[in-house]
Amino acid sequence: MIPVYLDHNATTPIDEDVLAVMLPYLRERFGNPSSSHPPGRRAREAVETARAEVAGLIGAAPDEIVFTSGGTEASNTAIRGAAAAREGRRGIVTTVLEHPATDECCRLLERAGHPVRRVAARADGRVAADDVIAALDDTVALVTLIHAQNEIGTLQPVDEIARAARARGVWVHADAAQSLGKVPVDVDALGVDLLTIAGHKLYAPKGIGALYVRGGIALPPLLAGAGQEHGMRPGTENVAFIVALGAACRIAARKLDRDAVRIGALAGQLLVRLQRAVPGLALTGHPDQRLPNTLNLLFSGVSGRALLEACPHVLASTGSACHAGSEEPSAVLLALGIDRAAALGAVRLSLGRATTATDVEAAADHLAAAWRRLRAAAEAAPRLSGAPT
Amino acid sequence: MIPVYLDHNATTPIDEDVLAVMLPYLRERFGNPSSSHPPGRRAREAVETARAEVAGLIGAAPDEIVFTSGGTEASNTAIRGAAAAREGRRGIVTTVLEHPATDECCRLLERAGHPVRRVAARADGRVAADDVIAALDDTVALVTLIHAQNEIGTLQPVDEIARAARARGVWVHADAAQSLGKVPVDVDALGVDLLTIAGHKLYAPKGIGALYVRGGIALPPLLAGAGQEHGMRPGTENVAFIVALGAACRIAARKLDRDAVRIGALAGQLLVRLQRAVPGLALTGHPDQRLPNTLNLLFSGVSGRALLEACPHVLASTGSACHAGSEEPSAVLLALGIDRAAALGAVRLSLGRATTATDVEAAADHLAAAWRRLRAAAEAAPRLSGAPT
Repeated sequence: MIPVYLDHNATTPIDEDVLAVMLPYLRERFGNPSSSHPPGRRAREAVETARAEVAGLIGAAPDEIVFTSGGTEASNTAIRGAAAAREGRRGIVTTVLEHPATDECCRLLERAGHPVRRVAARADGRVAADDVIAALDDTVALVTLIHAQNEIGTLQPVDEIARAARARGVWVHADAAQSLGKVPVDVDALGVDLLTIAGHKLYAPKGIGALYVRGGIALPPLLAGAGQEHGMRPGTENVAFIVALGAACRIAARKLDRDAVRIGALAGQLLVRLQRAVPGLALTGHPDQRLPNTLNLLFSGVSGRALLEACPHVLASTGSACHAGSEEPSAVLLALGIDRAAALGAVRLSLGRATTATDVEAAADHLAAAWRRLRAAAEAAPRLSGAPT
Repeated sequence: MIPVYLDHNATTPIDEDVLAVMLPYLRERFGNPSSSHPPGRRAREAVETARAEVAGLIGAAPDEIVFTSGGTEASNTAIRGAAAAREGRRGIVTTVLEHPATDECCRLLERAGHPVRRVAARADGRVAADDVIAALDDTVALVTLIHAQNEIGTLQPVDEIARAARARGVWVHADAAQSLGKVPVDVDALGVDLLTIAGHKLYAPKGIGALYVRGGIALPPLLAGAGQEHGMRPGTENVAFIVALGAACRIAARKLDRDAVRIGALAGQLLVRLQRAVPGLALTGHPDQRLPNTLNLLFSGVSGRALLEACPHVLASTGSACHAGSEEPSAVLLALGIDRAAALGAVRLSLGRATTATDVEAAADHLAAAWRRLRAAAEAAPRLSGAPT
């Protein structure tokens, strides 16, 4: 039996159409975009076509897109660049819900003397816009926040915060790595100045991303080198993966609405089926302000890790992939006020384009059966079970 | 007629065998190496296999290899990291022959207050080891130099410099982006502490590279984020391209000796055939201490750019791809004491694995014919020709 992959928030497979568009650039179209000869010029054209496709998905202009090696590099460029670029403003405002790329950038800046304010989250998985806005003043260079939290899928009130930030001269960076392709992301509707894009959450490969930089904003490049990407990102362009990201954005723009409805419905079915079979199952995060594909569930009386180990037919995670090796409860769940024992029961199920109704039924049944086995074992011999103590 | 690609120093096509090994990781093997489930674990294993393959090519241990998005990121990590890591040593010694990735890192450090000493090159395209060694003392943190100069192909005396550097406690970084796969590169034989590797010069894709970091050396990561690459390089791993780089290194290790002999012989034939047909043709750089595949030639009385435009059957460049848009003579050639008019006549012909004897004959004949046409036009109407004034 083929396992059901419900870990799309960790990484997605590459879309077949994305692969088809990309493959020629791994074969005969191998020119360096900086070369003047025809193979070089064709590579350059492919990069620029992709730039327009990425821009198109988020309502940006092509020259506002800088290609990077992934989301982490994009967020580093945005946050560290903004902190360096703003005369007379040193402060950074962020939240306790951030991805390590953002969080570690903020720590780095804090060690360099930048005041960093981390806004707490409410129990529903959101930061309150007012809490963030209260931290914004004319000493703040940047507010940086995750658009959709990667573990719980909760959408943050970026637009409301951005309106207030703009009025105070504060730049806004949103990490849209998880939200792009799952919910509408428009840089003007959100009101952001900087936006992180990660290919491998969007059916493009791992190793490519982009940063949206609003026209008029000048950031120092993170890497030193030659003049690629209009001086914003040196190094020979990853042409094949840039083409792939462009194609993935074009496809996402076309499929977004239908995907969101279909995948959201499947996630709803999965939740209902699990709730029927697993007493005490709790959904974390906001009930509506959420990604349609993500269910972060607390299974009572077992550890999420033990549950997934006991359920090899479901491929999922206990939190973000970046923390997969850890025995600790998720810091994000603790930040929502969930207690340690309950937080250890977390499993993140994240659906994707290929997920079917059959997948969802099978996954629910397998997870419920594994949960029952673990609970029965725990009741028989508590010390041998995966239950948290 | 299919043009002859003689621009392998700008970028190489991906080896067919590399592509075959990589493709499953763009299809069904799409797991995130940080995920605990089997697809994640298989991706992790693939990354570690590749790490051993890269290490194997350069005589390193697997845990001395950090994967990056390319040569530029590797050099940034090495140079900026070393400058930050060394207590009480602030100086940087480098050469006038460096790639922009190295050169711009040195400029960045210089602006931050690090003393940077740039050693001049001799007319033969080499820096004299003694000139570099004379600049090394106990205030110097790092000496960083290119192993094989990318435009002229001249090999630099890294081993001799490294021995002296080590005796003075100076770390050594070599940029082996152009040399790896063309000549033997062994980190112990060279005596380097840090070494830059770029996939796309080695029949692997654009967008992947690696940094060798000698065991015992701790560098701060360039990017802030999660804990991938043992904390040295955050961001979800580009598994497919890491696998590709591993395969490319394994193949290079096997093919290196034969490739070097065969390609070197072809380059020699190309040079002889051109010299017979083009009076005054001059080879720049060192006559023996050179990459076997690279000919940087000065065509007299024409500009290299005009020559290549007049010769669409040969795909080559006037210098590095990173400067392809420029009308200026190569700074590297000027640094060797070549005058501006002569330097404008430069064409870099760089051969590769697929280059054949037929290619070489055709390329020589096309270039010679284009040169004759330009010269004839220049004699008829000097102002309309591509000749430098």
